[in-house]
Amino acid sequence: MTGFQTIPNWLRKRAYLTPNRVAVHFNGQEITFQALYEKAKEAAEKIHSAGVQKGDHVAVLLKNHLDMVVILHALQLLGCPAVLLNGRLQANELIFQITDSRAQYLISEADFTDQCSAIESFCSKPILWIEKFHHYGRMSFEEVADFPFDEVCTIMYTSGTTGKPKGVLQTYGNHWSSAIGSALNLGLQENDAWLTAVPLFHISGFSTLIRSVLYGIPIVLFEKFEEEKINQALVDGKATIMSVVSTMLQRMIQQLGSRNYHPSFRCMLTGGGPVPLSLLETCNQKNIPVFQTYGLTETSSQIVTLAPEDSIRKLGSAGKPLFFSDIRIEKDGEIASPNQVGEIVVKGPNVTKGYFNRNEANQTSFTKDGWFHTGDIGYLDEEGFLFVLDRRSDLIISGGENIYPSEIENVIHRHPAIKEVSVVGMEDSFWGQIPVAFFVAKDGCQVTNIELEEFCVKKLAKYKVPKRWIELDEIPKNAANKVLRRVLKEKLNNKKVSRE
Amino acid sequence: MTGFQTIPNWLRKRAYLTPNRVAVHFNGQEITFQALYEKAKEAAEKIHSAGVQKGDHVAVLLKNHLDMVVILHALQLLGCPAVLLNGRLQANELIFQITDSRAQYLISEADFTDQCSAIESFCSKPILWIEKFHHYGRMSFEEVADFPFDEVCTIMYTSGTTGKPKGVLQTYGNHWSSAIGSALNLGLQENDAWLTAVPLFHISGFSTLIRSVLYGIPIVLFEKFEEEKINQALVDGKATIMSVVSTMLQRMIQQLGSRNYHPSFRCMLTGGGPVPLSLLETCNQKNIPVFQTYGLTETSSQIVTLAPEDSIRKLGSAGKPLFFSDIRIEKDGEIASPNQVGEIVVKGPNVTKGYFNRNEANQTSFTKDGWFHTGDIGYLDEEGFLFVLDRRSDLIISGGENIYPSEIENVIHRHPAIKEVSVVGMEDSFWGQIPVAFFVAKDGCQVTNIELEEFCVKKLAKYKVPKRWIELDEIPKNAANKVLRRVLKEKLNNKKVSRE
Repeated sequence: MTGFQTIPNWLRKRAYLTPNRVAVHFNGQEITFQALYEKAKEAAEKIHSAGVQKGDHVAVLLKNHLDMVVILHALQLLGCPAVLLNGRLQANELIFQITDSRAQYLISEADFTDQCSAIESFCSKPILWIEKFHHYGRMSFEEVADFPFDEVCTIMYTSGTTGKPKGVLQTYGNHWSSAIGSALNLGLQENDAWLTAVPLFHISGFSTLIRSVLYGIPIVLFEKFEEEKINQALVDGKATIMSVVSTMLQRMIQQLGSRNYHPSFRCMLTGGGPVPLSLLETCNQKNIPVFQTYGLTETSSQIVTLAPEDSIRKLGSAGKPLFFSDIRIEKDGEIASPNQVGEIVVKGPNVTKGYFNRNEANQTSFTKDGWFHTGDIGYLDEEGFLFVLDRRSDLIISGGENIYPSEIENVIHRHPAIKEVSVVGMEDSFWGQIPVAFFVAKDGCQVTNIELEEFCVKKLAKYKVPKRWIELDEIPKNAANKVLRRVLKEKLNNKKVSRE
Repeated sequence: MTGFQTIPNWLRKRAYLTPNRVAVHFNGQEITFQALYEKAKEAAEKIHSAGVQKGDHVAVLLKNHLDMVVILHALQLLGCPAVLLNGRLQANELIFQITDSRAQYLISEADFTDQCSAIESFCSKPILWIEKFHHYGRMSFEEVADFPFDEVCTIMYTSGTTGKPKGVLQTYGNHWSSAIGSALNLGLQENDAWLTAVPLFHISGFSTLIRSVLYGIPIVLFEKFEEEKINQALVDGKATIMSVVSTMLQRMIQQLGSRNYHPSFRCMLTGGGPVPLSLLETCNQKNIPVFQTYGLTETSSQIVTLAPEDSIRKLGSAGKPLFFSDIRIEKDGEIASPNQVGEIVVKGPNVTKGYFNRNEANQTSFTKDGWFHTGDIGYLDEEGFLFVLDRRSDLIISGGENIYPSEIENVIHRHPAIKEVSVVGMEDSFWGQIPVAFFVAKDGCQVTNIELEEFCVKKLAKYKVPKRWIELDEIPKNAANKVLRRVLKEKLNNKKVSRE
């Protein structure tokens, strides 16, 4: 036997160890670990009776609710990697991910009927509707006893600088390492409860599910982000830790007014882009401990977090890596010196083993000894604290959702009047950033913003559709013909935009 | 890459992550993780300059103090398994362990001069005296970057039913799994500090060292167990968790009187034999949370612990296994039903990979799929809680030290007047148990208790020397000629002892 090869089936183990602790609070309901385990087994029997076999990739298109939690666990008991689909995507985007991930089945619900009709007619995958589960038979299955460390648990899509989204393979070991590393950093208290108002289909939400079973603490789950309800829960002491993106935090603090959170609230774990200094200071005044983090879908959530004792002294830093993980900065292929800006490169058992079926991207992104090139830009100070300057130069983070310009550009490019297009992020006080499109029309063609927007809305999730359209005579490029996004951003900042 | 293969060099990582947190409080001194790391590197350079190479087994005969902590870490930085010697042993016992473990060097201090002289003359191992370290040169060495999960970190001796003590191989992965499993069960708070008054050469003490670096919390180290000082520390809130054996707890509670521990004290982790119910009840009245555990040197400390919510309802139980570990009860080679008494069999990443150089014992104790037969007796109730009825039938636990009758019997047997001897444990209100010898003299021979005691004192650690000597006409045996220790114990209980 070499190394740590398997993790106990975590839901089963947790149900054995502490059956009566609450696993999930949702909308006034609560469910214990024992009940969750039983429901997950029942759901697994039904999913199995619908034809799903161990090892099948199963796409999941559901909202945040108890049934989604049950189904995610059921797929683990069955040994089926779950392809977690973003409910905000348009049918064509979903079809791409379902096809690309080789999902054999889709589990969905009535709210997604429109998208599912399109999916069904295009790729004829069997769809299992959770509303119809009570009609399904139950077929016994061989429950996975131990999760192999390297086996795929989930697949989540992320885009890149080069075109199509890629499926990030997240293993049981990735999720486990992330949860353990986080516990060693944030601690673990008997009264802990984790508030999850971020989507379970994102790693920020999914990771709280795994922490819940490993730690034996409840998640306080919300269907969607509503600052009034969440603030009330935190004022009432219903949760001690919450995962947020910085735009959510901004809205919460505005809505909170002069009230304070319950003294038991101990950690606002903040990812998805930097937190503005003014917001950090407000939180500091209100005794809200904000832990800035840096993480990616590829690192199965946070990989760098600011420890409690440094939260003030190193304001603005994302902190230091989790115990099992490493970071370094590379500049021109060399390891950078302290304070030298370069690419953030990471390593650790929480880092993905690669993208599904993307040999080329895997070869460029990973070194042989396991370092992953994030494409993000930052530096380490003398003490080894990470400062993230910019997510990969073109990435736009809007309300916590990652937007990849190339994907939007690919869509706009298909419009018959468009010669060239380039999308960049613009600062926005509400969303953090919003996408803005610069375009050049073909000679003799004319096209309005409204036409372009309507063209995009059919093919892109709403949050990806550019909020501003700026026509140019030409897109600024460097000698190597690479778009100078920096120059475009300056145009936005200077507001010296010729035509809009 | 398969599984989790390496653990970051934990002291180096901790010194990088939280350099200024206190690692050890000892006797009014304190040392941060950064300072501990620097001292350990310096000690490693000195040890290396004395000839020690990576992979050498190095025996350590030291008392609990800061230098011992530094040296244990230094050996890890060098990649040298440490053979941890019990300071209470006699020279011949130490010589056996040093020889058997193939230790190439011994690190010791002036308090052990007598034993070391005998060791030196017998097995001519180079002895490195810590008092002379300041004379040593410093030789740079290649610091271990990552600890391989399966590499041996420590070797600790334990005896068995069959003669000679055996060296338990404890890997980095064993210690790591134990610490992580414990954190998932007991939690981890920012203000935690672990009081260690048990010997660092035992797994109960050594394991707190590893938790300290993994968790980033201090240990509050005591040279020896003195209930007054320790009670004062706990009353003053100097520690939140303490590892004890039940006899220590008894003495502490007696000395504590009407005082109470500081409200921040949250866990009395109790091993080394069952805690009497009356003591548990007293602790309960005084709001001292007692967590009973079951563990062995072979499981790198606790493997079964009672979770907070069950401490009252399941009073007397050792609890449920840690998250990564499993237990089962075997009766006649079959898995027992709930409440059926049998042998306790355990599995998990904290379980030793075997005894050093003991193929036969390894073959009998371990199954192919990794289950370890403890030889201890107990049962699991319907809910899966472990109740330990008896440590392996002949084991005597006296003041937290394991005493193996066979070892004492082997010594007594060498006395020229002794025909037969059998040693059993007798209940004792202070020590828990004490060893008692039943013997049969050779025909025509006479021997006094004092003669036998003097004979033993030269060859056995004091705590192993029988406290009572009982002469019999014959030792009771069964048809297979096996000593009926049960009958001997009944003789003690009935006090119908013929001659004493």
